[in-house]
Amino acid sequence: VGGITVLKELRRRYPSADYVYLGDTANVPYGTKSEHQIRRLSLAAVSELKSRGIEALVVACNTASSLALKQIREEMLGTPVLGVVKPGATAAFEASRAQGARRILVLATRATVQSGAYAQALQKLAPDLEVAEQACPLLVPMIEEGWLDHPLLHATLVEYVGAHRGRTGVALLGCTHYPWIQPAVEKALPGWKVINSAEAVADAFAKELGSPGGRGTGRIEWIFTDPAAVPGYAQQWVDKATRLA
Amino acid sequence: VGGITVLKELRRRYPSADYVYLGDTANVPYGTKSEHQIRRLSLAAVSELKSRGIEALVVACNTASSLALKQIREEMLGTPVLGVVKPGATAAFEASRAQGARRILVLATRATVQSGAYAQALQKLAPDLEVAEQACPLLVPMIEEGWLDHPLLHATLVEYVGAHRGRTGVALLGCTHYPWIQPAVEKALPGWKVINSAEAVADAFAKELGSPGGRGTGRIEWIFTDPAAVPGYAQQWVDKATRLA
Repeated sequence: VGGITVLKELRRRYPSADYVYLGDTANVPYGTKSEHQIRRLSLAAVSELKSRGIEALVVACNTASSLALKQIREEMLGTPVLGVVKPGATAAFEASRAQGARRILVLATRATVQSGAYAQALQKLAPDLEVAEQACPLLVPMIEEGWLDHPLLHATLVEYVGAHRGRTGVALLGCTHYPWIQPAVEKALPGWKVINSAEAVADAFAKELGSPGGRGTGRIEWIFTDPAAVPGYAQQWVDKATRLA
Repeated sequence: VGGITVLKELRRRYPSADYVYLGDTANVPYGTKSEHQIRRLSLAAVSELKSRGIEALVVACNTASSLALKQIREEMLGTPVLGVVKPGATAAFEASRAQGARRILVLATRATVQSGAYAQALQKLAPDLEVAEQACPLLVPMIEEGWLDHPLLHATLVEYVGAHRGRTGVALLGCTHYPWIQPAVEKALPGWKVINSAEAVADAFAKELGSPGGRGTGRIEWIFTDPAAVPGYAQQWVDKATRLA
């Protein structure tokens, strides 16, 4: 469900590339697992993709990008690998400069926050940034429940970010699920610029790896590690993303 | 976190038995996975417990009890195995007779509801029961977040069971996580008798398997398949259960 937001942005920019999408539905969610598990599962997924002869890999999950990118790059030696953390952090930094703001609030899973990956990436870009990170463990289950504009989603967001209302700055959606609820986050943080890491990684693709070009046919191959988890469930999000793209 | 509610009730009744507790923290939650995955993971956990020479097995998870009990019994041939579905259904049926009520509402995970295990067990006990099942996928993440008496937990419960307010009957907590929020469920369903499947399985133990007797020392051996998932997290629930027991 998270990675689909990244796929949607990539296809909007590169409609004729061919895509292989792997959703590790047997092992979601990653955001509450240990580093060790996240690395092990990420490498298993990558090995599956490697065997399909892909020419570039986008790790469309903040938790895996925060905790397993180095190991994934080693495994994929010779194939370009793009994570979501650096592009997201760069986009947030640029937005903060454009706004004359110094305050960046990162919303993410517990594992991503504990990894410190965003704080480190942002400090590296500009040591003067004032970075706050907020773990939001209930947002992924609420999004998967389809509560994208539900009163209890709005109330939960106020619970998580309420302390930051009344101030302004840049809020970075540090989980690929969160673009589904970007309007709700914007409502919860009036006056804040909200940055979507799915858009950021799609923007960064051509810049870092070159355009995927027009040799493909726009085909998507779907792989789900637990295809029967909830019948019709993945398809519902794919349809939603296709309508939105 | 769910199984601990069952362990607490077992220890309250059989304080001198020895316990081995396996929490499959690498693979939670089960409630959103497919039958195939749930069976595979349950058998892996059981094989770990089998190697410790246990004398009886309690499957302290409704999802595994609903979907994998037959396979677990085959794997453990010769060792008594008790699931939570039949004891929970029996306790709910007895409460409905005591109350002169015919209406039973089962609250459970999506996988448990889809399995139909509770509806079948209840129909077998009494075909005249009026059984409704409600999937409550956000309750487990809220409980794991520690929102046991949070306004948003109460609001979410009203969302799930609101349609049943104003009527009366027996509500069965068909997930071993839910005893942590039994007072909140009672508040959401005024006039309903709430049955806790953790208590029911502990009550059924001696009846079905005989008392575990006094040969042990009350020791608990803890096994977590992803012990590092959230440092200190499991311990926090163990402490909470110990205080409550």
